[in-house]
Amino acid sequence: MQSKPSEPARPVYVISAGSVAGGREKRGPLGDLFDFSGDDRFGKDTWEKAEAEMQRLAMGIALRKAELVDTEIDLVFAGDLVNQCLSSAFGLADYRIPFLGLFGACSTCAEALLLGALAAGSWVRRAAAVTSSHFCTAERQFRMPVEYGGQRPPTAQWTATGAGAFLLSSGARDALRCGGDFVPRITEVLPGAMVDRGITDVSNMGAAMAPAAADTISRYAAAGGSLQDAAVLTGDLGAEGSGILIDLLRAEGIDIGERHLDCGLMLFDPETEDVHAGASGCGCSALVMAASVLKDMREGNMGDVIFVGTGALTNAMASCQGQSIPGVAHLVRISPVPKSQIRETEGGV
Amino acid sequence: MQSKPSEPARPVYVISAGSVAGGREKRGPLGDLFDFSGDDRFGKDTWEKAEAEMQRLAMGIALRKAELVDTEIDLVFAGDLVNQCLSSAFGLADYRIPFLGLFGACSTCAEALLLGALAAGSWVRRAAAVTSSHFCTAERQFRMPVEYGGQRPPTAQWTATGAGAFLLSSGARDALRCGGDFVPRITEVLPGAMVDRGITDVSNMGAAMAPAAADTISRYAAAGGSLQDAAVLTGDLGAEGSGILIDLLRAEGIDIGERHLDCGLMLFDPETEDVHAGASGCGCSALVMAASVLKDMREGNMGDVIFVGTGALTNAMASCQGQSIPGVAHLVRISPVPKSQIRETEGGV
Repeated sequence: MQSKPSEPARPVYVISAGSVAGGREKRGPLGDLFDFSGDDRFGKDTWEKAEAEMQRLAMGIALRKAELVDTEIDLVFAGDLVNQCLSSAFGLADYRIPFLGLFGACSTCAEALLLGALAAGSWVRRAAAVTSSHFCTAERQFRMPVEYGGQRPPTAQWTATGAGAFLLSSGARDALRCGGDFVPRITEVLPGAMVDRGITDVSNMGAAMAPAAADTISRYAAAGGSLQDAAVLTGDLGAEGSGILIDLLRAEGIDIGERHLDCGLMLFDPETEDVHAGASGCGCSALVMAASVLKDMREGNMGDVIFVGTGALTNAMASCQGQSIPGVAHLVRISPVPKSQIRETEGGV
Repeated sequence: MQSKPSEPARPVYVISAGSVAGGREKRGPLGDLFDFSGDDRFGKDTWEKAEAEMQRLAMGIALRKAELVDTEIDLVFAGDLVNQCLSSAFGLADYRIPFLGLFGACSTCAEALLLGALAAGSWVRRAAAVTSSHFCTAERQFRMPVEYGGQRPPTAQWTATGAGAFLLSSGARDALRCGGDFVPRITEVLPGAMVDRGITDVSNMGAAMAPAAADTISRYAAAGGSLQDAAVLTGDLGAEGSGILIDLLRAEGIDIGERHLDCGLMLFDPETEDVHAGASGCGCSALVMAASVLKDMREGNMGDVIFVGTGALTNAMASCQGQSIPGVAHLVRISPVPKSQIRETEGGV
């Protein structure tokens, strides 16, 4: 059991991010920040092909922003919610980049950033992290035919339609080429262990994931990680899970209440888009991170962020077989570094 | 694009391996080598629970062999073929080890060893790699109800029922505690890029994966990797894919013919168990590596092995939607190190 968070051996910067969102997400409070948005079909004839197309577009945008081409990226960590992670495979197959597929349910965005940071901090120069989700691929795969329009309980979350791609580099010249006065740097990561509290309700993923988030955050605190000087951004517990997380941590003497944000509560405006307990899906945290958090950080409007990606590990057959839902949560700490503090010779690229 | 293979920053040893096999695998040529085998149900009432149980058992065996408990392992990389990688989640949820889920289809064993080696070589001391497959979970998920007994074409491979768990450590004391005169050391890794040659036949995964294996092997050779002094062990191309791989490499001036082995051709005896083109599934290469290759290496009966795990990235819906099958292949080079060459103070554990 890893007793303390890992730090990349070399400084690792998030040098660019691309975000591609669906129509409902476009109408939300972050709508103006997305690099690209469409009508959920993205010119394709199936939802699955549309989701893959979002990943392809997000990666292309991230590459263009960083003034790089695919072959300049050493490897990509990618995943999604579709069976066998195929949105990632089909979305990224056109890029000539070594591909490592991941599955961490909604924690996949954090898992990809965590592994990308450790990779770019040690054995390669540049890595990419790409994740997506699509309401229509997830809904029919995990729950009901989309056309059925089944009633959802108040604890249910709405799978976001969106993709985010992040380029990570240990090169100072890469970092200095990016827009803004600050560069987001991944300073610490802590992978999470599974926690299973016996939740079997697939319409209450927040309750399944919150104990895992509490576990990772309290392990981080116990190892000396500082929670005081940073926003704690979970993704995606929604309203139900966020409340449980705050209660669980308070019982351990950790109060994150005022500094807590949740990606699932940032994507939609509950006044205009009723998504019950909030948004979810790998695409939700990817959109919030790519379009909003990292942008604010680059512009000097956001301090340290402790991003805790949360995932509920289930599938359609496991719920039919009455299995409970283990949660998992991975922690990635990101800090804004003023460009003036980055030496141009660092890291080689 | 990573231009040359990565080497773990510190020496990383495979300090133990556990193998758990199904009944048909037990009857094969490696049958006597498996640590445990059962009747494919492993005391459970569904195939999915049985597959998870194989992972749980394999991990327990690997821990016992290394004289370690779960909390002494820093993190585990795991994956399987079941939707959302749930055999790994349910199989390992009882262990208190940070969990990073992977999906690389049949390449997942190599992907887990690759990431585990880089992790144990830099940011943690010990990592685990666990993978599995089960004929009955895979068959009904990807193809037909098991009871249907559909006719399989000659190019089809048989998904192996088995799990393998590997413990990786950068600690010399860990390495020296293991049985045998030699310790397998992971010396180089090279992640593979996807290659899609337009194969759409889900009963010919070998043809879908062989071009990816050829791509990774020729990238390795081009980067100065030595193919002359090692066995090249692919997993799992089967008879069809192995022939294609050898032809593709020969066209590039690389001849691995005499040194080539394939996990898919090692698990079953074609005289007694007709599995058509061979075995496949994450469990196949995991079983061959855990029970046979690493054992031979520890006993001084096997030299360097270049393990090239191959995966076919597809799912049931993608084949219904007429999508082709991208292949991917990850390379892990393992070398036997005489115990006399390992300094006891190395690595700290």
